Amino acid sequence: MTLSQQLAARIVALTYEDLPATAIDNAKTAILDTLGCALAGAREHAVDTLMATPGMATSGECSLMGRSERLDLLSAALINGCAAHALDFDDVNTAMGGHPSAPLLAGLLPLAEELDSSGRTLLLSFIAGFETETRLARAVNFHHYDLGWHPTATLGVFGTAAACAKLLNLSANRTATALSICVSLASGVKANFGTMTKPFHVGHAARHGVMAALMARQGFSASLDAFEHRQGFFNVFNGEGNYHADRALENWAAPLDIVTPGIGIKLYPCCDSTHASIDAVRLLQGEQAFDVTDVERVVVTIHPLRLTHVDRPVLRSATDARFSVQYCIARTLLDGRIDFDSFTEHAYENEAAKSLMAKVETRPHAHSAPTPEGNYLTELCIVLRDGSQRFKRLDRPLGRHAEEPAPPAMIRAKFDRCTAYVLSAEAGSRLHDTVMGLETLTRVSELTAQARSPE
Amino acid sequence: MTLSQQLAARIVALTYEDLPATAIDNAKTAILDTLGCALAGAREHAVDTLMATPGMATSGECSLMGRSERLDLLSAALINGCAAHALDFDDVNTAMGGHPSAPLLAGLLPLAEELDSSGRTLLLSFIAGFETETRLARAVNFHHYDLGWHPTATLGVFGTAAACAKLLNLSANRTATALSICVSLASGVKANFGTMTKPFHVGHAARHGVMAALMARQGFSASLDAFEHRQGFFNVFNGEGNYHADRALENWAAPLDIVTPGIGIKLYPCCDSTHASIDAVRLLQGEQAFDVTDVERVVVTIHPLRLTHVDRPVLRSATDARFSVQYCIARTLLDGRIDFDSFTEHAYENEAAKSLMAKVETRPHAHSAPTPEGNYLTELCIVLRDGSQRFKRLDRPLGRHAEEPAPPAMIRAKFDRCTAYVLSAEAGSRLHDTVMGLETLTRVSELTAQARSPE
Repeated sequence: MTLSQQLAARIVALTYEDLPATAIDNAKTAILDTLGCALAGAREHAVDTLMATPGMATSGECSLMGRSERLDLLSAALINGCAAHALDFDDVNTAMGGHPSAPLLAGLLPLAEELDSSGRTLLLSFIAGFETETRLARAVNFHHYDLGWHPTATLGVFGTAAACAKLLNLSANRTATALSICVSLASGVKANFGTMTKPFHVGHAARHGVMAALMARQGFSASLDAFEHRQGFFNVFNGEGNYHADRALENWAAPLDIVTPGIGIKLYPCCDSTHASIDAVRLLQGEQAFDVTDVERVVVTIHPLRLTHVDRPVLRSATDARFSVQYCIARTLLDGRIDFDSFTEHAYENEAAKSLMAKVETRPHAHSAPTPEGNYLTELCIVLRDGSQRFKRLDRPLGRHAEEPAPPAMIRAKFDRCTAYVLSAEAGSRLHDTVMGLETLTRVSELTAQARSPE
Repeated sequence: MTLSQQLAARIVALTYEDLPATAIDNAKTAILDTLGCALAGAREHAVDTLMATPGMATSGECSLMGRSERLDLLSAALINGCAAHALDFDDVNTAMGGHPSAPLLAGLLPLAEELDSSGRTLLLSFIAGFETETRLARAVNFHHYDLGWHPTATLGVFGTAAACAKLLNLSANRTATALSICVSLASGVKANFGTMTKPFHVGHAARHGVMAALMARQGFSASLDAFEHRQGFFNVFNGEGNYHADRALENWAAPLDIVTPGIGIKLYPCCDSTHASIDAVRLLQGEQAFDVTDVERVVVTIHPLRLTHVDRPVLRSATDARFSVQYCIARTLLDGRIDFDSFTEHAYENEAAKSLMAKVETRPHAHSAPTPEGNYLTELCIVLRDGSQRFKRLDRPLGRHAEEPAPPAMIRAKFDRCTAYVLSAEAGSRLHDTVMGLETLTRVSELTAQARSPE
């Protein structure tokens, strides 16, 4: 059997009864968090521009996350994916080196709405897709990531195809064909990070995952050895010797990747490389109160690979602020939190923040070898006017490790703030409860109706 | 200036007055030949299957080549591209290592119809797109080709975006953005050759080329250094050290690639690696008549890289026949020609052909180093019953080199046979004349109306 056939056999064989409770809980958290991000992201400029581009948003019957238009299935997947990743605030997975849920949910929701699937089928399909993309990631990362592919897109397309094949109840052969078609669809490079094309990658992957499953269902053909073929996915995208094909099947679903390593929830709407520093300040504030006017100096030590992203002592725009560890530390010292309002158009011009930023000193960490966990190690020291020091060392931000999950209250607070862009508090709360009870939901169309914008 | 900006500046600057007569003539031949292939290919199973897949063929106002449905712009580009390449019979270019015209025309025609552009604008845009894709090919081939990318798709998407940007009269900045978006859209690997996914690649590239131009026009953003960026097209798709970025601009349009090396026309609807052998038999038949019953033995010597594709002494299907040099030689000996009817469902079971095939002996060429010209060198020797021998050596098939173009009568005959699948002889002849007079055509919508299926 080829790899796509072996993956397909596992995807087809997975049943709801196989899923441990943690897998279902984590899938619901991932779906909740992705919905929140999509609702908050649905009005971003990239999404509006796609909606306005001829041919990209064909009218149809499918609801969108956070918008009121109805589009055809493939367009809905595209727009959903772009919205879900527009703020770069959606969940992460360490094996994938990217965002596992945005492409999956973007493609699955309109398809599940069209099929009027049950919540259980949605959860099962989501988890099957998640497992497929993260297992393929194990085979190619982190060379794949480092080379410059955008794994959320180049691996997400396989996850989405697997999830949609599962939702469509395709045979093993057609599921394998869908995966093989995706070998010819995978695309998206990091050179386009920092532009609208980045979230577009995710919509593109979602659209293509759905499309590949539909093409396979229709009887379209592809080479079932498209992964391991000399001129197939492994060699062409990664280069000979830069992958371990067998890792894609090793310990498949034992445990499921959505259980371990699980999902990481981003708690702050700014560059990932600032998050551990924000957590460190918040933890120190929680341990022992101090007056912000007493802060004389802050020294933060970060892995050099991350420091290059966020070492911005001077800001020229609100976007700069999202990528400035100095600003994020200053703002947390001032407000005790970081949120969307920390990055409004003029927030970064705040004088108190500016003067605190001048007190932040950044240092690259001496141990600079890259680590598979993402180089998050951060040391933060606050020196107060009386000469006393507060010190915090974090291996990673909160919410990024199965043993250190994001506090449920913070996940809920993030969801509420995100959905408030589109929904009333009551409607947001109803959506939350629907997701939390997904396994009992008879018709996903109830969920999609709640997640669209009422206007 | 980045590479995409420099390419864009050249694309924008090119005017119709810059074009030498040979460029216009070759563009017309390329368009004629691609139209023929698309009309003959439009009813292939891959195209029908795409048409039937939900979301792939959205209704709209655009005509298709060789079909009667009307689709929206992006769907029309997709279906057109798949049709144009479905028979693998469309023109080739040695720099590109692929088929230059199919994606270009597939994307340009529905857009030109929608804009109701003139024939001159179509020709100019076609030539600008052709130059863009072949120049990028010079920068990355033949490593790109050998690695396993399908250049017709992975480079054709850039050509199509450039052509459509030109047709839309985009600014240099937006043209550069369209090219940079395409860095995140390029896809298609050779592992899927031999399946419906191969022609799909071409439709996909055509659709994406049009789409990138429309996105750029709408104000979508991408990184203008997406080619040379450390995690951009050159490094990610080809690997460090495997490309020569400066070749993309070297001698740009001096001469135009459509003039030299120009286009190669495929004269037989079967695997490229059989063509020089068919030509050799035909040339020998033309030089001195002989009776096929007198043939005792045929020895054909082919480059080993090509021989592996076509060394098929025993046939099990009509598809096998298209990939059998033994069959193609036998059939040419019998009929004096190779055509669609040589490959009908049961043609390969012909007893006379079978007994001639048994007399064909294949040998790999001793000089087996790959050559940039495509390893076409073929030696064919016919041994007759009286002991006399007929010998022919060809560097390449007819019609593959600017100095050895396909005879106009053969191009016309191919076009007539291809269009006969869809059009009456009279309508086919009218379409021929319209293409031959493209530079005087006021409205491309007249051409697209003639090229669609009347049913």
